[in-house]
Amino acid sequence: MTTSFDAPATGGASAARLPVPSAPVEAQPPVAPAADGATSEGVPSGDVTAAVLAVARRAKDASRALAVATRATKDAALHALADALVAQADVIVAANADDLERGRANGTSAGLLDRLALTPERIAAIAGALREVAALPDPVGEVVRGSTLPNGLRMRQVRVPMGVVGMIYEARPNVTVDAVGLTLKSGNAVVLRGGSAAASSNAVIVAVLRRALEEQGLPADLVQSVDEHGRAGGVALMHARGLVDVLVPRGGADLIRTVVREATVPVIETGVGNVHVYVDATADPAVALPILLNAKTQRVGVCNAAETLLVHRDAAAGFLPSALVALDEAGVTVHGDAATAALAPDGVAVVPATDEDWATEYLSLDLAVRVVDDLDAALTHIRTWSSGHTEAIITRDLAASERFVAEVDSAAVMVNASTRFTDGGQMGLGAEIGISTQKLHARGPMGLGELTTTKWVVHGDGHVRP
Amino acid sequence: MTTSFDAPATGGASAARLPVPSAPVEAQPPVAPAADGATSEGVPSGDVTAAVLAVARRAKDASRALAVATRATKDAALHALADALVAQADVIVAANADDLERGRANGTSAGLLDRLALTPERIAAIAGALREVAALPDPVGEVVRGSTLPNGLRMRQVRVPMGVVGMIYEARPNVTVDAVGLTLKSGNAVVLRGGSAAASSNAVIVAVLRRALEEQGLPADLVQSVDEHGRAGGVALMHARGLVDVLVPRGGADLIRTVVREATVPVIETGVGNVHVYVDATADPAVALPILLNAKTQRVGVCNAAETLLVHRDAAAGFLPSALVALDEAGVTVHGDAATAALAPDGVAVVPATDEDWATEYLSLDLAVRVVDDLDAALTHIRTWSSGHTEAIITRDLAASERFVAEVDSAAVMVNASTRFTDGGQMGLGAEIGISTQKLHARGPMGLGELTTTKWVVHGDGHVRP
Repeated sequence: MTTSFDAPATGGASAARLPVPSAPVEAQPPVAPAADGATSEGVPSGDVTAAVLAVARRAKDASRALAVATRATKDAALHALADALVAQADVIVAANADDLERGRANGTSAGLLDRLALTPERIAAIAGALREVAALPDPVGEVVRGSTLPNGLRMRQVRVPMGVVGMIYEARPNVTVDAVGLTLKSGNAVVLRGGSAAASSNAVIVAVLRRALEEQGLPADLVQSVDEHGRAGGVALMHARGLVDVLVPRGGADLIRTVVREATVPVIETGVGNVHVYVDATADPAVALPILLNAKTQRVGVCNAAETLLVHRDAAAGFLPSALVALDEAGVTVHGDAATAALAPDGVAVVPATDEDWATEYLSLDLAVRVVDDLDAALTHIRTWSSGHTEAIITRDLAASERFVAEVDSAAVMVNASTRFTDGGQMGLGAEIGISTQKLHARGPMGLGELTTTKWVVHGDGHVRP
Repeated sequence: MTTSFDAPATGGASAARLPVPSAPVEAQPPVAPAADGATSEGVPSGDVTAAVLAVARRAKDASRALAVATRATKDAALHALADALVAQADVIVAANADDLERGRANGTSAGLLDRLALTPERIAAIAGALREVAALPDPVGEVVRGSTLPNGLRMRQVRVPMGVVGMIYEARPNVTVDAVGLTLKSGNAVVLRGGSAAASSNAVIVAVLRRALEEQGLPADLVQSVDEHGRAGGVALMHARGLVDVLVPRGGADLIRTVVREATVPVIETGVGNVHVYVDATADPAVALPILLNAKTQRVGVCNAAETLLVHRDAAAGFLPSALVALDEAGVTVHGDAATAALAPDGVAVVPATDEDWATEYLSLDLAVRVVDDLDAALTHIRTWSSGHTEAIITRDLAASERFVAEVDSAAVMVNASTRFTDGGQMGLGAEIGISTQKLHARGPMGLGELTTTKWVVHGDGHVRP
């Protein structure tokens, strides 16, 4: 998902110079990867491990200064980072040209090259996103709950920064800036491991941001990269226990799987979306078809795009023929079961679907289509194949909508709305660092609040436990 | 921590018979443990893995029935479980006698045998804890936040059960019942791997609870154990990805370390508490000494007991001599630095402290004591050695208390109160399944709410993303 905002940028107060304390912190040495050899990442050498732990330790030290910084300080820094990116756009574009040239030499597709490409206009937009993060409320310091106990103890649970956030991500260099903006605003240091395809762009962007932080009187080590250590650096980061407080992998299913298997630091999984649209028996085709087309075709390479259409058999004859034509006209290849193929008008091709189609997050103009006997069959299909990201029901039946909402176990459940709305910006939550498909800590779009933890603060007057 | 409650037990409505759907769910095969051989657990064979995955799959199926159960159904079941434990007390005590006999033959200490022992009175108390969980509010269905967006989409974030909770724990059989009560009330199935020392007691308790669930019309598979597969069963549980939604290890540091290294399912770490009490320059000795004694001696084998005392050098001469005498009289062995030893009155022994003392969670009548130059030195010591559980400051200085609260990065920070208050029951949060010392999802006492996740529910009227 890309960062998206509605709020206008606002100015911030000037920054205060912060002390940067330093102290030893505990860390466990990384363990060797699983013996099954299935890891796609390298095993870090002792040197790489030591270097990455040193990076993480500096991040931890730097994070302590930021944890007690005011919102004014952080917002001023975000605007300064934005200014610096715009001022250094030429240097960044030049570095990006190296990445593009290397990509072309490696046979990278035109679509991926376009995602990778930076122009002064795109850099201005990326800088604008930082200003919009500055305009969002500061989650740090929010009192989540609190009370005075019968014995007089005053308790409050307060939102505080995590400390050090690790980000392992692929390709697009705007993610680098988004990650820095969100972690800085939420009071955290960030250690980045970006995709090698964007290595030159990321290196220059990180250098520009670090210099701008220093000029604001903040520690440059709030933003660091371990890209120079390649894959082994990423693996070492996954094992920096006690130094990295949370690791957010953002990319394809392979990357997420590797991180989950390797990491000993806490991980939040993001983004794999095998997303379903279920057209119920009572669905209004005039509602169902625009939602289906929006969910499938508005943007195909994103995690909240639809990948499978399920149609109640009572709705199939009324809905599928025109839907298949509309999908065909939109350039969508349909992978359908026999019932779907039987309803395809002449000239509309349906590729026979297999279990692999039900399991696949296409991220392309492909759609699996299945006719189901009833709501139970739709729920069973979703339970079996969904990645737990987003599912939608199109219906006019209240009871069906309520069962769908209650029984679908996904981060977001839509009733008569496109799956494309599962997005921090669209949901009014502000920018997001990813969409969590796991159940711990954050589920769905992860914004600033999800980059914090809490602390219990208890005040007494000499209270002892009886 | 033991479960503790204040609320009286109340009755519940009668239970409804729930359907138990079944469907395939995805799971990844477990990977082999780390090649460093440091694991203390066995490698599961293919048979054990298959058996444990089948257990977890049945738990997942059963959890779906409970996820949509009403509070009345769940509370009635909790009372029925309590009744069944009391009714079967003789059988449970007989099984417990086997555990005790085996423990004595193995040379288990009297203290551990006492923790293991069950009597009809203790069983009644354990059953009472289930009734008290029934009296707590149901976290499921709580709307955490919600709004109507400018485009008319109605959004709400609703608390829902996790699904399947895995519990890996040691020794005391009351933990078995506590875990069942808390997971049932929060709408989850539980898969248990208990300590081998309590194997006979746990087996009978699980059988009693399963039968009582069936008699209530609930699936027995809401409560299952993998104890029969020994250590390998526990390891297989750590790898049941897609079936176990969260794993809660509860026990010593070795157990936690093993789970964190091995697990590919999400884990919440609990309970290691290297807890500090800092007596500031301005502390009132009449406040500091009772808090110190309470924190160290009220109960020594628990995670919120104090393990290290730090004393500001300006308070040392006024506080330490009498404190050392009081600790000595309470049977506490002091491991102190040179400044502490120099202040010990005649006849009060101080064992010289090493770095190992600063690092140790004694869980015994031992206390590390260090004189520090100032608040900064105390903060540095805590940053270096704390496990992030609970730290307390005793002070009359407002600025010192505020810096301590802001800069100590622990689950709970106490001002002029005993560290023993970090406890779900004491904090008024109800029963707890453990105390999290990690930052993701739950930090501090984990009650019913922390055993749930959330789901975004979005209602539209044909909304598509522009």
